[in-house]
Amino acid sequence: MSKQQTEKVRVFALGGVGEIGKNMYGIEVDDDIIVVDAGLMFPDDDMLGVDIVIPDVSYLVEQKDRVRGIILTHGHEDHIGGLSYVLKKINVPVYGTKLTLGLVEEKLKEAGIHRQTTLKLIDSNSRIKVGSTNVSFFRVNHSIPDSVGVCVETSQGAVVHTGDFKFDQTPVDGKQADIGKMAAIGSKGVLCLMSDSTNAERPGTTKSETEVGQGIAEVFEHTDGRIIVTTFASNVHRIQQVIHAAVKANRKLAVVGKSMVRVLSIASKLGYLEMPDNLLIEIDEVNKYKDHQLAILTTGSQGEPMSALTRMAKGAHRQITITEHDTVIIAASAIPGNEQSVSGIIDKLHRIGADVVYGQTKVHASGHGSQEELKLMLNLMKPKFFVPVHGEFRMQHAHRALAVEVGVKEEHIYLVDKGEVIEFTKGQARRGGKVPSGNVLIDGLGVGDVGNIVLRDRRLLSKDGILVVVVTLNKKTGEIVSGPNIISRGFVYVRESEKLLEDSNELVSNILKKCVTENVNEWSSLKSNVREGLSRYLFEQTKRRPMILPIIMEV
Amino acid sequence: MSKQQTEKVRVFALGGVGEIGKNMYGIEVDDDIIVVDAGLMFPDDDMLGVDIVIPDVSYLVEQKDRVRGIILTHGHEDHIGGLSYVLKKINVPVYGTKLTLGLVEEKLKEAGIHRQTTLKLIDSNSRIKVGSTNVSFFRVNHSIPDSVGVCVETSQGAVVHTGDFKFDQTPVDGKQADIGKMAAIGSKGVLCLMSDSTNAERPGTTKSETEVGQGIAEVFEHTDGRIIVTTFASNVHRIQQVIHAAVKANRKLAVVGKSMVRVLSIASKLGYLEMPDNLLIEIDEVNKYKDHQLAILTTGSQGEPMSALTRMAKGAHRQITITEHDTVIIAASAIPGNEQSVSGIIDKLHRIGADVVYGQTKVHASGHGSQEELKLMLNLMKPKFFVPVHGEFRMQHAHRALAVEVGVKEEHIYLVDKGEVIEFTKGQARRGGKVPSGNVLIDGLGVGDVGNIVLRDRRLLSKDGILVVVVTLNKKTGEIVSGPNIISRGFVYVRESEKLLEDSNELVSNILKKCVTENVNEWSSLKSNVREGLSRYLFEQTKRRPMILPIIMEV
Repeated sequence: MSKQQTEKVRVFALGGVGEIGKNMYGIEVDDDIIVVDAGLMFPDDDMLGVDIVIPDVSYLVEQKDRVRGIILTHGHEDHIGGLSYVLKKINVPVYGTKLTLGLVEEKLKEAGIHRQTTLKLIDSNSRIKVGSTNVSFFRVNHSIPDSVGVCVETSQGAVVHTGDFKFDQTPVDGKQADIGKMAAIGSKGVLCLMSDSTNAERPGTTKSETEVGQGIAEVFEHTDGRIIVTTFASNVHRIQQVIHAAVKANRKLAVVGKSMVRVLSIASKLGYLEMPDNLLIEIDEVNKYKDHQLAILTTGSQGEPMSALTRMAKGAHRQITITEHDTVIIAASAIPGNEQSVSGIIDKLHRIGADVVYGQTKVHASGHGSQEELKLMLNLMKPKFFVPVHGEFRMQHAHRALAVEVGVKEEHIYLVDKGEVIEFTKGQARRGGKVPSGNVLIDGLGVGDVGNIVLRDRRLLSKDGILVVVVTLNKKTGEIVSGPNIISRGFVYVRESEKLLEDSNELVSNILKKCVTENVNEWSSLKSNVREGLSRYLFEQTKRRPMILPIIMEV
Repeated sequence: MSKQQTEKVRVFALGGVGEIGKNMYGIEVDDDIIVVDAGLMFPDDDMLGVDIVIPDVSYLVEQKDRVRGIILTHGHEDHIGGLSYVLKKINVPVYGTKLTLGLVEEKLKEAGIHRQTTLKLIDSNSRIKVGSTNVSFFRVNHSIPDSVGVCVETSQGAVVHTGDFKFDQTPVDGKQADIGKMAAIGSKGVLCLMSDSTNAERPGTTKSETEVGQGIAEVFEHTDGRIIVTTFASNVHRIQQVIHAAVKANRKLAVVGKSMVRVLSIASKLGYLEMPDNLLIEIDEVNKYKDHQLAILTTGSQGEPMSALTRMAKGAHRQITITEHDTVIIAASAIPGNEQSVSGIIDKLHRIGADVVYGQTKVHASGHGSQEELKLMLNLMKPKFFVPVHGEFRMQHAHRALAVEVGVKEEHIYLVDKGEVIEFTKGQARRGGKVPSGNVLIDGLGVGDVGNIVLRDRRLLSKDGILVVVVTLNKKTGEIVSGPNIISRGFVYVRESEKLLEDSNELVSNILKKCVTENVNEWSSLKSNVREGLSRYLFEQTKRRPMILPIIMEV
């Protein structure tokens, strides 16, 4: 029963707009809520001690009964990394392609929820019903195989979410993006396009992944020593090309790093990697081979301090230490925020004297389409309304300009922030208010128990440390029984600042004595007197403001 | 008396190699130690709470009597920012050009050491004696006027330090780099060249500053609304071009931000800026003018949270709030490490709806020469030995490759780390050991009192916060008189974790009781029992490791 455009369609983002990471989008068709992706983001520098960040899904929890499923466009952390947390709150079916579900399964096992979760396998040719809504897919190229775009069919036209995409004319697996199918969707009529804005500021066309393979192969060709390659573990295409290069150069390949080993085993088990049986060797076997017979594939492309590559460079890795005879290929670019750690590892490798091959030019290509490709997508889909997603706000902004260039009406383009709803009725669009949205911080086992107060304290503590002032008072007389004892952490070298701490001690005693004589005896005011007095004194002396924690005991 | 090549020449870096920032170099000619520059560096992310970093100058202090002076190549913070700290330890004459000394004077006044310091004015034509060593200079182009290279004359040939340079064929002030003089120095014979490696990885030639002026002028031409421009306060050339653009567009110019105001007043006082008297207006006057009559020059090009630009964007600035009618020109690039804060401010401005002009392409040019210019410098100087300086190690490394390209013998090129000495006798070079070197961290008034222990504590505190456990015991019986009280900061929301803290409390009591019965009564072991027991429990419960500070009082 076609609903003759009577149904209400709503789209919104719970994450992925105004930021790079934790992609999560909602598409509502009357009672059906279809979720696209459930990603994580790595914390900003000021989210001290936080491990990962996921979207606030309280809206979905509140609307539980309407959520029909979560569709995953591909297997990257910023699209699937939040899934296990979300599924603990709303248990709904998860749709994804083979590789995507393969990677998801692992995570669900780790989270201990793989049994209670329904995984539904789809491919780019599937046409499925989610709730009472028809959903189809189309293949796109990206830096991980089996990536799809999503087409949600409504009587007002299709709502299309591209997922992450580029148009690679020479993809490693020979599977080009489904241009014909996209054109068909476009000509049937697209109500709203939600498209990847990551490279909306980058002119031209993104380089083919195959060129990266050639760059890597070249290095293999011209190198006699040992070769160490690092890239994103999830970039199966690139791993495939490293494998090809190793085979061609008659080198054995050792794989290092938890995530790299995991992805490699899943991808090859599922048939996304082809390699001769005798290629891989155990890391303990490397000493059996000469340098020119060896290649090592490792994690650490972002210079993570605990990663295998960093440990190899520091000589802190059990089996492998990088020397001046090695060649290191860093087949990746720095994710925003990692610039310093990446340049740190590159520097460290140069100090060792290793040959280092890095940088966009030769051994890396983005997985996201540049301006010409984004315009192509817009021209294929010919959307009536356009919502640029997946990017910092300025990238959504640049994407809008591209859409206008190819003829989308400016007033039909909506730049949305997290939670902002665009509502479609009878083929017309309007802003439809806001659903709850935000960041949920995950620290260890704690989900959301780290908030502004905790972060504010961590920031204070990290800046100038803490002074704990302990004193025991006589319940009746209010006189000091023992203390004050001052313990400091992260403030100054105690050795070199004995005088300062002695004087602080005396200051506190005087403040307390004064309070007694003036019989100020509520703890709160005692404490605030100590805090303010000491803080003022320390700032005069050091221009620092450590956190001061007065503890007053009574006996 | 020519020394017939009998004298010993040594060169080394106390800062500026293997890093971007805190440039400080030593050139020794027998008994004379000549210091080139005394810069600061901004702290890495892991130097929590540290304000700035300066070089360890203990070697210079130890050799006080031999240090003849500090020569400043130009007025950037990474070349003069450490000066006032160094001069407090060694009071030696400071040589610099007019603008450089103008900027230095301010700093010395702030530090209260301007009276005791001898400032000696030089220009690019000066030839002076420092100690018994002849020193001359040559003009270079850079992103601040009055920049010079240094030529230290020895009987073995000249030791040349380029300072920061580019070759700008169309400099804003019309003063090209002194190519003829450099060639003359080269043909007289250069023993050792120390040259700027910043852009050694960048092919081609760096854009002229004049092109930036055209870019800025264009924006002014095509904008009707208010224009807000931000750039590095020290980039006097660029400020001049903003002034030209404002004059041409009949706009008044308001200057905002402490450092911007300071540099502007110094530079114009010293005649490095030309502007009509009626151009500048006070910030409180902006409301007297229409948008199209106004331009605002402000600090904040690095997205610093407290900078004027950020506050204007947040609506937290007293006089100016940026609106969708404004055009903001960010005439700067992100200094390594600032990438996120810069993209943060750009994003914020886009959200407001302001037009934002930013990025290398149009309104910024580097102050450092690219590969072709570095090769030109090498060809002009024809050094016998080459020590690439001023850059991360990989940039020194890339600079070496360029030198080899233009014919410098590879074995005559030395990549040095901080403190490593290259020694020249009878025109031959060898590595001459190491002088003390390192980072001195400055936090508030404390110089060097923040070291590894303090930083380690701050890191711990920043990750998972702190728990303070206070308990008062009876001196004789060892029984608990009061407490345990547990206070936590930066660990968990207390509200949401009452249970956890109660259980922790109970756990601690049990540990202590157990200790009493087993009469463990040295405080140290009491404390370690509490620390370990509680830490283990909390990690099981939360997978976090807050710092635990047990405080045991006796009465």
